[in-house]
Amino acid sequence: MIVVKLGGGAGIGHAALVADVAALIAQGERLVLVHGTSHQANRLGERLGHPPRFVQSPTGFTSRYTDRQTLEIFMMAAAGLVNTTLVEALQRAGVNALGLSGIDGRLLAGQRKATIRVVEDGKPRVLRDDWTGTIEQVNAALLQSLLAAGYVPVVAPLAVSHAGEGLNVDGDRAAGAIAVALAADALVLLTNVPGLLRTLADESSLVPRIPRDALERWLPLAQGRMKKKLLGAGEALAGGVRRVVLADARRDAPLAAALAGSGTVIE
Amino acid sequence: MIVVKLGGGAGIGHAALVADVAALIAQGERLVLVHGTSHQANRLGERLGHPPRFVQSPTGFTSRYTDRQTLEIFMMAAAGLVNTTLVEALQRAGVNALGLSGIDGRLLAGQRKATIRVVEDGKPRVLRDDWTGTIEQVNAALLQSLLAAGYVPVVAPLAVSHAGEGLNVDGDRAAGAIAVALAADALVLLTNVPGLLRTLADESSLVPRIPRDALERWLPLAQGRMKKKLLGAGEALAGGVRRVVLADARRDAPLAAALAGSGTVIE
Repeated sequence: MIVVKLGGGAGIGHAALVADVAALIAQGERLVLVHGTSHQANRLGERLGHPPRFVQSPTGFTSRYTDRQTLEIFMMAAAGLVNTTLVEALQRAGVNALGLSGIDGRLLAGQRKATIRVVEDGKPRVLRDDWTGTIEQVNAALLQSLLAAGYVPVVAPLAVSHAGEGLNVDGDRAAGAIAVALAADALVLLTNVPGLLRTLADESSLVPRIPRDALERWLPLAQGRMKKKLLGAGEALAGGVRRVVLADARRDAPLAAALAGSGTVIE
Repeated sequence: MIVVKLGGGAGIGHAALVADVAALIAQGERLVLVHGTSHQANRLGERLGHPPRFVQSPTGFTSRYTDRQTLEIFMMAAAGLVNTTLVEALQRAGVNALGLSGIDGRLLAGQRKATIRVVEDGKPRVLRDDWTGTIEQVNAALLQSLLAAGYVPVVAPLAVSHAGEGLNVDGDRAAGAIAVALAADALVLLTNVPGLLRTLADESSLVPRIPRDALERWLPLAQGRMKKKLLGAGEALAGGVRRVVLADARRDAPLAAALAGSGTVIE
């Protein structure tokens, strides 16, 4: 069992991964695919006159402030455009894909953070009407029954609060939570960099392997999204996933390459 | 087993039906919900600078010309906004809803009509790059397994071609095909009129009951969308559905009222 997250950044297409997934499924592999949405959500927000607003937490993380209108734009981009066209591309390649968001059947349930603390212009501020959250429960039975019936689940990064509200959640953390719930052998995070880099701008400075015990020492090196990915990798390993691979989505056969050991392998 | 189609026209909200569905589910009823998207798809197309283009067939039917860009707008409106917010509203009401489009798991499979004949300014024309189609197969096993596991399936009106392409399909016909595949007791089509009217502008001219043998005689009376609904009703009855009700979505408890006999009952 493999859980794959396809990044939603600019420059990441579907075609190479779709061909790769079709080949693995034909070999009998069981797989859940989670996708990001950031680039398409940003683009749609700009086209609709409601561009994204990124905020910084007091601990230095950057995230998307999600008011209700942004959540609905995110629903259109994630569950509407990215999920549906990815499922369509898989169907064209002969894979019986089935798309879900985390709201469907309470696939990903968690806690809403309606109020968030941010730092703007160096000053702390509180923002209300936020529709983001953290995942606390995965409906593994739903995924398992779909997998047993021969479907390939394709998951959009939305979750449902305990009160039933839709939430924007981090795709890497969603993939990690699913990998833990399914006791996956591997979690593969495909993105628009080759893996963890010692020097951000230098793609040849790839860190090829991190023993799980050493993960914490590498955290200060990681910046931006990569820090979240390493934290998510740590959670997945602590939850029983055997191996996490951070690898490049922008090449041919990205999944096969990641499973063969390219990228940063954490185990 | 009941299949309900909620119209996608202007002025049709979700709240009344959601409360109604929650009450029926609490009583142990089994139900599949199909929704339209037309108003939201039109609005999104206009906001994105790609307004809808309606075309007339040589036999007088009006439909949406769906080029690839329109299909993707339709995906965002149908699978993204309408389906996800409807599932969210049901979850908030305590119903474990699960949204799917007809592409997911090949739920609704059919034939693409890549080329359509239309009449424009009185002249016949052929339009290419159309992404619409007709439904030939319903994956009833998928719906049945979801229903058996306690989920309420919520279906967006998209289908998948034999080659795996996404298609825009008519929501009423999709609901009819699902009702036949599930051997439903009733198919309820909720829309923004009280049912079939003898005089289009006069809501008091409702036709309360049509025996199935007499349906064909009423076809000339029906105009626009209503003609398609009557054709769909005829297909559903011919396919084994016991009763079709055309009823008003704009009132309290619209589903309970329709099941109690308000609207136009065809049986």
